[in-house]
Amino acid sequence: MTDNTHKEAQHLHRLILFSDAVFAIAITLLAIEIHPPEHWHGVADLFGQMQHKLMAYAVSFAVVGVYWISHRRTYSRLRRADGVLDLLNLAMLGLLGLLPLATELLWESGSAPAALVYVGLVTAIGLAHAVAWGYAALFGGLSEPMSTIEKIYVLLRVALLPGLMCSLTFISLITRTPWGWLGIAGVVAGLSMVNRRVARQAAAPAAQTADA
Amino acid sequence: MTDNTHKEAQHLHRLILFSDAVFAIAITLLAIEIHPPEHWHGVADLFGQMQHKLMAYAVSFAVVGVYWISHRRTYSRLRRADGVLDLLNLAMLGLLGLLPLATELLWESGSAPAALVYVGLVTAIGLAHAVAWGYAALFGGLSEPMSTIEKIYVLLRVALLPGLMCSLTFISLITRTPWGWLGIAGVVAGLSMVNRRVARQAAAPAAQTADA
Amino acid sequence: MTDNTHKEAQHLHRLILFSDAVFAIAITLLAIEIHPPEHWHGVADLFGQMQHKLMAYAVSFAVVGVYWISHRRTYSRLRRADGVLDLLNLAMLGLLGLLPLATELLWESGSAPAALVYVGLVTAIGLAHAVAWGYAALFGGLSEPMSTIEKIYVLLRVALLPGLMCSLTFISLITRTPWGWLGIAGVVAGLSMVNRRVARQAAAPAAQTADA
Amino acid sequence: MTDNTHKEAQHLHRLILFSDAVFAIAITLLAIEIHPPEHWHGVADLFGQMQHKLMAYAVSFAVVGVYWISHRRTYSRLRRADGVLDLLNLAMLGLLGLLPLATELLWESGSAPAALVYVGLVTAIGLAHAVAWGYAALFGGLSEPMSTIEKIYVLLRVALLPGLMCSLTFISLITRTPWGWLGIAGVVAGLSMVNRRVARQAAAPAAQTADA
Repeated sequence: MTDNTHKEAQHLHRLILFSDAVFAIAITLLAIEIHPPEHWHGVADLFGQMQHKLMAYAVSFAVVGVYWISHRRTYSRLRRADGVLDLLNLAMLGLLGLLPLATELLWESGSAPAALVYVGLVTAIGLAHAVAWGYAALFGGLSEPMSTIEKIYVLLRVALLPGLMCSLTFISLITRTPWGWLGIAGVVAGLSMVNRRVARQAAAPAAQTADA
Repeated sequence: MTDNTHKEAQHLHRLILFSDAVFAIAITLLAIEIHPPEHWHGVADLFGQMQHKLMAYAVSFAVVGVYWISHRRTYSRLRRADGVLDLLNLAMLGLLGLLPLATELLWESGSAPAALVYVGLVTAIGLAHAVAWGYAALFGGLSEPMSTIEKIYVLLRVALLPGLMCSLTFISLITRTPWGWLGIAGVVAGLSMVNRRVARQAAAPAAQTADA
Repeated sequence: MTDNTHKEAQHLHRLILFSDAVFAIAITLLAIEIHPPEHWHGVADLFGQMQHKLMAYAVSFAVVGVYWISHRRTYSRLRRADGVLDLLNLAMLGLLGLLPLATELLWESGSAPAALVYVGLVTAIGLAHAVAWGYAALFGGLSEPMSTIEKIYVLLRVALLPGLMCSLTFISLITRTPWGWLGIAGVVAGLSMVNRRVARQAAAPAAQTADA
Repeated sequence: MTDNTHKEAQHLHRLILFSDAVFAIAITLLAIEIHPPEHWHGVADLFGQMQHKLMAYAVSFAVVGVYWISHRRTYSRLRRADGVLDLLNLAMLGLLGLLPLATELLWESGSAPAALVYVGLVTAIGLAHAVAWGYAALFGGLSEPMSTIEKIYVLLRVALLPGLMCSLTFISLITRTPWGWLGIAGVVAGLSMVNRRVARQAAAPAAQTADA
């Protein structure tokens, strides 16, 4: 039994390492299709010609980065892994692997449908991640002890946050106004407040259990 | 001697990490040759033009994912590694590294011979994996204590399952009927039943040994 | 509390593994756009035609290598990680991911503006790394116990060294004189002396604290 | 002091993980420039058109695999790492990163000079690896306790073996005779005998020391 527990922890460990490697490769491949222009005169012209590609790179890098952070945070609350989590995590990684393609679409076309496809993919990754977390925490019993409210709060945060952040970033970049960035700052500030409240609520029953 | 045991466990650890990295890179490279079409009008047209590539990507992602799960499960039952396992595992990874190429073949041609080459490669990877497991468990004495029946059962599952899954997926995709998916569901259900029975049979003599 | 400390150490561990993977991919992708020339006669002609690409590869490999060593050294002095360090480290990796592109720029154009962009990127990576270290050591309280002087010394070394090394390398390569290499040797020798002095100064108060 | 020993062991650990990642990426990138031919009729024609590429892939995969095994074996005998080993290991990895390029050269030209460059690169990687080992074991004092004879034996094996294996493989492939493969079998058999003798010689004085 203890041997089994050890194995399931090992399973989680290997799942996380594999995911990290996929994240790292996806984030590094984002730049692989960016090539310098053939003709350019001076640094300003170079950046002028490449600005769409560099901006798409920056956005996608931020997206993968946010997902990596989100993945690290949620999976650090798991204690074990099982075969279903393997599959759900793979589905999320499979969508993530399409991000370099969507990034290329974004800078080549730059049209509204391209942005739609891009935001749709980012949202789909978030939903797939949320499904994996929801299974692990609510059905699979794979998480550390935490209240159902906290599990659902994490679920919603994981499902909605990346799509929201991505949309706000686009708003800032397209309208060339700081509203998107301010919105992100507001979301981050609000979340850190809610985070603390949820953590306190989660700590209270735990303390009671410890007292009992 | 204990130092040696420690080293062989370290060897296995490094073998697994290296394999995981190759799996992660192979799975992420599957999308690298997919580029958006030059001309497209609206999201529906975009997906229409890219459907073959996306389908080939999905199938190959599933194949690598299944192999990764299979690798994780079998190697979690090993205790040590040796030089022969290094070579056999490398042979399997060498075939796996050709999967992006076979995926490209699949979406570019889409003909029956291309599908044949693809399924052939998937089957070859499964056989190479089975050879590695067979050596490790039956000849190299590298596995944790388990009955010979269970070792052979794992061998057959590793050798046949991925090729079968891949064929059933193709059947579903090509005939556009749910029979392939139903077949996969049936195989998974059947296997989980056999898995439990084999585990019980394996546990019984172990308990007897523990009693004795 | 102990559980939390363990989690923050795990966080740092995963942050380092992820960064290592990005470093490894970035360093290996440097050569991916280098292809052999179509026509060449004999080995000397081959190297003659490829010398700019190989030199750019060597320089960029050295740059990523130096940053990896620098990252390894500074992060080995951290005890924990937090969300801000995640973001700052990601910003550094995002700049690092552009190095294959800047390398291509370097060998294709080879002009002074290309070298300027390249050195600018290398310097920007160093500054981003320094910001991450500065936050972790001076504001986030994430480092092992060390004096503020030592923290600032590490900060300056991290911020300035890679840009300096890169500039000296360019000077050697462009002027085809050994002055740049000699400069690097001088910097390395000087640093190892300062390193020892700072280590001694850092050890002294620690010893006093231990005595008290 | 103990903290320092722990750090140096961590250093070695991170050095090995980084090297593994580079090995894994280099081995997976070998196939990235292989594309299916545009026109082909039947499986036999496909393999006929692709045989040079697949053969070059197989040889290079074997080369990287042999180096990975060699790296794993030698570094498993180290206890710690230092800054010089970082640099020497990076130099080896920098040469390894050129192998996909040399592989492309091999299948595109297939001429004697191309084979010469390829074998030259393989030999250079072996020599760089040997320099790293020689420094670590003979000068840096980074290895586990072992006799100087054994250190030098490992040095020679690391320096000469990969180039020899690669040459014998080429001989087999180019002359289409089994002599190269037989030569490899002979080398492997001979080495395993010498390995055992050296291990026994190394064990003898260790036992004497333990007795004293």
